[in-house]
Amino acid sequence: LQSVRWASDHLEMLDQRLLPEEIVYLQLRTPEEVWEGIRHLKVRGAPAIGISAAFGVYLAIQHARGNTAELREAVEKACSYLATSRPTAVNLFWALDRMKGKAASLAQDAGLEAESFKQAMLQEAIQIQAEDEETCRLIGEHALTLFKDGMGVLTHCNAGGLATAKYGTALAPFYLAQEKGMPLKVFADETRPVLQGARLTAFELQQAGVDVTLICDNMAGMVMSKGWIQAVIVGTDRVAANGDVANKIGTYSVAVLAKAHGIPFYVACPMSTIDLNTPTGKEIPIEERHEDEITVGFGKRTAPVGVKVYNPAFDVTPHEYVTAIITEKGIVYPSYQENLPKLFS
Amino acid sequence: LQSVRWASDHLEMLDQRLLPEEIVYLQLRTPEEVWEGIRHLKVRGAPAIGISAAFGVYLAIQHARGNTAELREAVEKACSYLATSRPTAVNLFWALDRMKGKAASLAQDAGLEAESFKQAMLQEAIQIQAEDEETCRLIGEHALTLFKDGMGVLTHCNAGGLATAKYGTALAPFYLAQEKGMPLKVFADETRPVLQGARLTAFELQQAGVDVTLICDNMAGMVMSKGWIQAVIVGTDRVAANGDVANKIGTYSVAVLAKAHGIPFYVACPMSTIDLNTPTGKEIPIEERHEDEITVGFGKRTAPVGVKVYNPAFDVTPHEYVTAIITEKGIVYPSYQENLPKLFS
Repeated sequence: LQSVRWASDHLEMLDQRLLPEEIVYLQLRTPEEVWEGIRHLKVRGAPAIGISAAFGVYLAIQHARGNTAELREAVEKACSYLATSRPTAVNLFWALDRMKGKAASLAQDAGLEAESFKQAMLQEAIQIQAEDEETCRLIGEHALTLFKDGMGVLTHCNAGGLATAKYGTALAPFYLAQEKGMPLKVFADETRPVLQGARLTAFELQQAGVDVTLICDNMAGMVMSKGWIQAVIVGTDRVAANGDVANKIGTYSVAVLAKAHGIPFYVACPMSTIDLNTPTGKEIPIEERHEDEITVGFGKRTAPVGVKVYNPAFDVTPHEYVTAIITEKGIVYPSYQENLPKLFS
Repeated sequence: LQSVRWASDHLEMLDQRLLPEEIVYLQLRTPEEVWEGIRHLKVRGAPAIGISAAFGVYLAIQHARGNTAELREAVEKACSYLATSRPTAVNLFWALDRMKGKAASLAQDAGLEAESFKQAMLQEAIQIQAEDEETCRLIGEHALTLFKDGMGVLTHCNAGGLATAKYGTALAPFYLAQEKGMPLKVFADETRPVLQGARLTAFELQQAGVDVTLICDNMAGMVMSKGWIQAVIVGTDRVAANGDVANKIGTYSVAVLAKAHGIPFYVACPMSTIDLNTPTGKEIPIEERHEDEITVGFGKRTAPVGVKVYNPAFDVTPHEYVTAIITEKGIVYPSYQENLPKLFS
């Protein structure tokens, strides 16, 4: 299952809200449809959001008339628009910046035909997706060096193949371990309110034959206290320059619990998730979502009408809880303030 | 709303599984129906389970023939049977022991009529319920001395009026604060998998006009890190002699998070929940429940078919996380090993 795939003239997006019950690919032909898909969590996961947005930019110019300067303007406009779909994951802005950069560089070539401009923009989106797959494989290989045969590893939310082009970030080592016949016992937090852990992580690991046990979020502490967990690994939507990490709500609780039990807490992400322009976690915007996700989350009302609800989609885990950050370029240890910039040099 | 109420010749039990959508009182006329009600969470909450079981014992002899010795035998049998309904809450066994004790003492009176024996047993069950209401009010008064105007207080699961005869244990101070016009801001964990926090705690506090905000369990850490919580208060199903506390799954995680944030963690319970015969939390049996509670919890499948699930209904919070235990006789601080027995002397 691929979260998004290009189909000659439109984007196919797996509607992840329907998983694991139904496998439905939406046919998207406009940036507005891509915006909707991102906003309403049909696609989610920082890298997959970035990939979707990149194709959304191309969809904005696919049938546009005009010269390359006009197309570039249309690209800029589409990027501004798509950037409003969700606020926390930096990969969205990274992918849009890359598409803008590509358009700017193409527009410098005065002799370039409009059609060639368009084709080059489509190739850039395809390239972003292809690179993500390779990136995830590398992250998985680095992460796997941290695990040993038979270890219990807890993950939260879904940073798997469905959140990326393939393999995932946090889940990549599990797929590689499976390929190598190395036994790991994975525990997946169900991840309220949208249950990405139950619906997506448990689903994709089960499909791959990985040994996965589903628990409710509030069972993580007990499972750790039983000695069943030797490592935690999660994805992230943005890493600040000091190593503070924004990820799906509940990640911070898991990090505090891991520290209290002496369990290492690893964060896996592509370089594109590291945002050196955001000094600390305090500056990362945290999206709040509709109360319905909590009160009528499963098609059935589970809380009284009119009750006050707080529903942040993400939280920030301060860097002191993060044992290491695993990227395609290798494993980074503290001090992140010093070591993260070195990745980019 | 009362969780259970005696109706001249049968027990009315509020089916809490249907709350907050529907208010349905079941009419129970046999111990088997009471057993079912306890096992299937129609009634839950340690004190309410004990009260229900006490009435269940009376239902076993209400229409029985025979002399007082035979009735006593029937009581013993009903107690053994009802004790198998759920394993963790000690109030169940406490209430059954009390009914057995009453029967034993009644049977010593050779001249007692069978009908008088029955009436005395019914009165004992009614008395257990009446005492629980008074007990909860006293717990609330003691607990309220720990809170200050405007404090944010987090609670987990439901230890409210629906879990007891009235007021609740952990929720009692909120009701008393409301009566006194003292403002408190309550945060209620929704409490997966059965959502007692969303369906019951948020519901009963909202009904009473208490300022309550519903969150998912995995948001507790973030809410604490924001400085919104100055105290945690929860109920319990059993307190061991060393102060270890069994309560709804997720309580342990909340306790660890509270400690990490320097927030006091209070446990409220009647004396009948303290089990000096259980040395530590390790000896408390932890009920595991069906995977369906997690995978199809709300009438809709939220996890892949056949996925492995771990579903413990309770966890144990070690005594070192417990700031104080609040009973009807006052507030107990560590060392619990030393101070809990003093309550009973």
